[in-house]
Amino acid sequence: MIRVGIFGATGYAGYELLRWLRRHPEVRVVFAASESSAGASLADVIPGPLDTPLIAPDEAPLGDVDLVFLALPHGAAGKMARRARAAGVRVIDFSADFRLATPESYRRWYGHDHPAPELLPAPYGLPELNRAALRGAMLIANPGCYPTGMLLGVAPLLMAGALTDPLIIVDAKSGVSGAGRAPKQNTHFVEVNENLAPYSIGQVHRHVGEMRQEAQRIARGVAPEIVFTPQLLPVSRGILSTIYLRIPDDWSEDRVRALYREQYADEPFVRVLSAGALATLGHTTDTNVCAISLTLARPGLLIVVSSEDNMVKGAAGQAIQNMNLMFGLDETTGLV
Amino acid sequence: MIRVGIFGATGYAGYELLRWLRRHPEVRVVFAASESSAGASLADVIPGPLDTPLIAPDEAPLGDVDLVFLALPHGAAGKMARRARAAGVRVIDFSADFRLATPESYRRWYGHDHPAPELLPAPYGLPELNRAALRGAMLIANPGCYPTGMLLGVAPLLMAGALTDPLIIVDAKSGVSGAGRAPKQNTHFVEVNENLAPYSIGQVHRHVGEMRQEAQRIARGVAPEIVFTPQLLPVSRGILSTIYLRIPDDWSEDRVRALYREQYADEPFVRVLSAGALATLGHTTDTNVCAISLTLARPGLLIVVSSEDNMVKGAAGQAIQNMNLMFGLDETTGLV
Amino acid sequence: MIRVGIFGATGYAGYELLRWLRRHPEVRVVFAASESSAGASLADVIPGPLDTPLIAPDEAPLGDVDLVFLALPHGAAGKMARRARAAGVRVIDFSADFRLATPESYRRWYGHDHPAPELLPAPYGLPELNRAALRGAMLIANPGCYPTGMLLGVAPLLMAGALTDPLIIVDAKSGVSGAGRAPKQNTHFVEVNENLAPYSIGQVHRHVGEMRQEAQRIARGVAPEIVFTPQLLPVSRGILSTIYLRIPDDWSEDRVRALYREQYADEPFVRVLSAGALATLGHTTDTNVCAISLTLARPGLLIVVSSEDNMVKGAAGQAIQNMNLMFGLDETTGLV
Amino acid sequence: MIRVGIFGATGYAGYELLRWLRRHPEVRVVFAASESSAGASLADVIPGPLDTPLIAPDEAPLGDVDLVFLALPHGAAGKMARRARAAGVRVIDFSADFRLATPESYRRWYGHDHPAPELLPAPYGLPELNRAALRGAMLIANPGCYPTGMLLGVAPLLMAGALTDPLIIVDAKSGVSGAGRAPKQNTHFVEVNENLAPYSIGQVHRHVGEMRQEAQRIARGVAPEIVFTPQLLPVSRGILSTIYLRIPDDWSEDRVRALYREQYADEPFVRVLSAGALATLGHTTDTNVCAISLTLARPGLLIVVSSEDNMVKGAAGQAIQNMNLMFGLDETTGLV
Repeated sequence: MIRVGIFGATGYAGYELLRWLRRHPEVRVVFAASESSAGASLADVIPGPLDTPLIAPDEAPLGDVDLVFLALPHGAAGKMARRARAAGVRVIDFSADFRLATPESYRRWYGHDHPAPELLPAPYGLPELNRAALRGAMLIANPGCYPTGMLLGVAPLLMAGALTDPLIIVDAKSGVSGAGRAPKQNTHFVEVNENLAPYSIGQVHRHVGEMRQEAQRIARGVAPEIVFTPQLLPVSRGILSTIYLRIPDDWSEDRVRALYREQYADEPFVRVLSAGALATLGHTTDTNVCAISLTLARPGLLIVVSSEDNMVKGAAGQAIQNMNLMFGLDETTGLV
Repeated sequence: MIRVGIFGATGYAGYELLRWLRRHPEVRVVFAASESSAGASLADVIPGPLDTPLIAPDEAPLGDVDLVFLALPHGAAGKMARRARAAGVRVIDFSADFRLATPESYRRWYGHDHPAPELLPAPYGLPELNRAALRGAMLIANPGCYPTGMLLGVAPLLMAGALTDPLIIVDAKSGVSGAGRAPKQNTHFVEVNENLAPYSIGQVHRHVGEMRQEAQRIARGVAPEIVFTPQLLPVSRGILSTIYLRIPDDWSEDRVRALYREQYADEPFVRVLSAGALATLGHTTDTNVCAISLTLARPGLLIVVSSEDNMVKGAAGQAIQNMNLMFGLDETTGLV
Repeated sequence: MIRVGIFGATGYAGYELLRWLRRHPEVRVVFAASESSAGASLADVIPGPLDTPLIAPDEAPLGDVDLVFLALPHGAAGKMARRARAAGVRVIDFSADFRLATPESYRRWYGHDHPAPELLPAPYGLPELNRAALRGAMLIANPGCYPTGMLLGVAPLLMAGALTDPLIIVDAKSGVSGAGRAPKQNTHFVEVNENLAPYSIGQVHRHVGEMRQEAQRIARGVAPEIVFTPQLLPVSRGILSTIYLRIPDDWSEDRVRALYREQYADEPFVRVLSAGALATLGHTTDTNVCAISLTLARPGLLIVVSSEDNMVKGAAGQAIQNMNLMFGLDETTGLV
Repeated sequence: MIRVGIFGATGYAGYELLRWLRRHPEVRVVFAASESSAGASLADVIPGPLDTPLIAPDEAPLGDVDLVFLALPHGAAGKMARRARAAGVRVIDFSADFRLATPESYRRWYGHDHPAPELLPAPYGLPELNRAALRGAMLIANPGCYPTGMLLGVAPLLMAGALTDPLIIVDAKSGVSGAGRAPKQNTHFVEVNENLAPYSIGQVHRHVGEMRQEAQRIARGVAPEIVFTPQLLPVSRGILSTIYLRIPDDWSEDRVRALYREQYADEPFVRVLSAGALATLGHTTDTNVCAISLTLARPGLLIVVSSEDNMVKGAAGQAIQNMNLMFGLDETTGLV
């Protein structure tokens, strides 16, 4: 049994993680910590079946666990990672603190110094594109929700060096759980309901830095450039990304699909849809799957639609997939 | 032209009022005040067509208006009402400050002293049940959203002295705009969406005091008693109240319907549905109408379903109806 | 391994069943049948992770299974049950065909002759109230979604003979999956969204017959009578029932709660909430749990709020619970 | 007073038209026709305040009206237009029948012969781009919902010949009312709720033909080409289009905004948002406004976000605007 602890258990990602871990046969949750709700039961905070007792982060028995999941704000996560690593405990971090490879890049996108630069670089936890670096790792940076769907959606073409224009347009729509559980004006029910609201569009959203870094790492040929349009959707969970790419004029849709199918042939959590089918949020709700559809709009212009559940493949499910890799388990354990 | 000012313009009720007043041919909005957003345009705060400039409450030119609408929290509303009345300006108050007839009753339900007891009692602004007192009034207490639908739903039977049991069960479901615009955990999109949540049920919600007072005022025979179950519905606006009443065993549904139709025969804003039809939220969305259906569940037990738009008949529309009465206009002006 | 077959796999209940059975360690799904979509994969019909091949009902290999689940319309279910029983196969029926104990009662509520009267009466599959009859049964009538939540919500008081008035008022609100997957005007997104719509209220909904039969079976003292107000809620899944009951004036809320806690002490799927907490849909979403809160509105009047996921405890989850009882497994297997 | 008749009054667009016409001071609705619901009142079909009696289309007194609105399926609309024009009645057609300029283009996109080719070409009813042709017109083709928002969103740049690449990518999301009122599987509440579903993406949706025709008509320089990604959004009304355009590298966002502001300076129903603001559905809900935001993602790449209410500016409101032009009224009459 892997003994795990969770920090940030009362956020949406932490809660989702606990929900999935209930069904994982090789995990025992030793503690769940919450700054704001220590002393309560999780069921007091989020109505539902999970009555896990919540402890204060300072009282977390790091000596009793093999692994901690950090579902904390960036900055705080890095500090806790340092503490956990000093105690010899492995770390899977949901925050952005270890996704960017250098302290400089981190400062550029997050506006402050990195909280634990000595731990950089950490392997980027997108198993389908970086599996070798994750097996047995001590610290893994769990990817951002948007980058997960975007990167899986474009990777085969990047790897094949098939883009004829470096520009990748990502028109992405996310459920509100991605904005966190703290109440804000823009997550008030009445403001979200019957609405669709773009925010931080162009090249300013922090996930652009992460997408660009990873896209460039895997790309052959031109260095890809990303234009990103995140939008808040009136649903609780899920991300649908519509991605526009330029490919050679003589590539057929079948050729593209064959390339994707080959790349993802052995992947349990990527599903390349058949010709004529279009990915929807419903394809992946409550699963660890990324579903991808491919449509040639006209010669040379490809529309990739990538669907994921932002709370599962975009957060807790991917973290469990990474944990399975860390500890040498079958990658799908606890994720079906 | 009636010259009006609005305090609390950036709350949902204040905003809705401005939306309706655009179409009122006899009103000129002289100012709209907001504590939190003075200096901005309303369109900066709530995206949409209303670009009314917002001023600070302290700078409101009371001398330039005939009437102010107070869409302020209780307590603050009473103080502003005093200020307005001292300046000779009429007042329609959306808050609870003038709904209860005595300072004692107010203290019992709101937990603090009344902010302007010298202005009590004020006429209760439910025109269909209290029209005479509203014509020409200087201060009107605009009713609560829940009491409006509940009182219109039971009034004909109360007036007829037809209840055989004093107990009135009100199972009410409200859209989230009723909870106000300030973000709170229980109005976070993810907490409301795909949920239905009762709160303050039994006899503890503050509207119980208001319902009881007004129900007793109009009732013949037994003094009615109210059990109230408010529930937060995943919609933006509207209240549907299902009301359970005991009536004489020998009353037919037709007899009840005839009683309601007679009571509301000349009312432009009450609609008694035909046999077989059931009131839904959709019957009244974006209208100043209260729609009522009547179903005899079995001899002696009546189910009244009452539908209203909480932002219109439950707030801004009713306030305009009251204004029309105050100033001797046709009651429907600006409300179609 | 229990070898099972499913008829009606492309309806919401059949699909939900397959979704849960994936995680059941003792079940092998031998076939999934669909009249309308034979030859397709389930994933072609309902986007998502289940790619089960669908066969025609006539080609179902009854000889290869131990149990069939019938997620078929009433009438059709009874005929298939006869066929399955003739082949020696056990049956769990989701339809109403075996819920009412006599052909006469069935004809009264469903308007036509019973399709397989020789199989009546079948045990009513609400384990918490009828467990003994379900162990090892060959045919089980899976309860209706509304009756499940209602009966669990009132059973302790009925068993204790504690109602002082036979009338039980059930104000129930259901998600739209309860209305089935066939598109109808009243399930069109635009008609449901931002709406709340009562239907078949009073004593005319077919579930009234089922509730009354089972309530009377377990009640001591007065024969309970039910008034039922079903309402269509703009959510996909879940039922919240607010139930109004008269109890002795000298019973405290604590006494009621103690009674419920004793009755359900060993039940893994019933959760009696603590004083002050109110059941919401969120308490039970995607679980096989029925959550119950108890509020004494005033002496003698109790409000029970009962929450269940209509697709799980109200359909597929309860069917699996019944299957576990049928085959002598731990009742919670595959349901966590 | 303009005497008008409406065909197709029980569809969403016809209903919305009646809702707005109530407030139009210069219009008298002489009849409302419905094939399916003749003899009923509109309130029997769609719960709400409109109790207009419905007549059979064949009994419509064309001799008593000056204008008919056709909210009918394409094909049927063309035939009715012929009948109305033969009777000397003016026509505003909501369908696609008169949007494409030639019978050949119509056959290519709609797959059958044009129902009334002698009436082609009709002026395209987008006042902001074609006002001169609409004043006093006898027949107007009311534009499609998607093309309205898209064309207003790109017109200033097309007119200025400022595109450096002919490709216009339109990622559009529409509320479900756009799919019509007839129940279908893909408009079932449970299929739409918590989902986002692309359909007919690339260059196959029929609105591509309409967009291309009108874009080419107003463009200087390169002939624009359109890639279009329509998506079904879980809201009742509204369209948000995110549009990606290539412009000269040395154009600043301010220069673009100045161009748009100049083009739309006198337009009452186009709102160009200020720098930093992004258009959302909420900006235009229940208004006849198209709101446009402009974001330079990086030099040479512009993101236009265009918001409209598909039922108002995308259908009924624009039809009223066209009627006002037809009859020489102020264009905003009845639309505030």
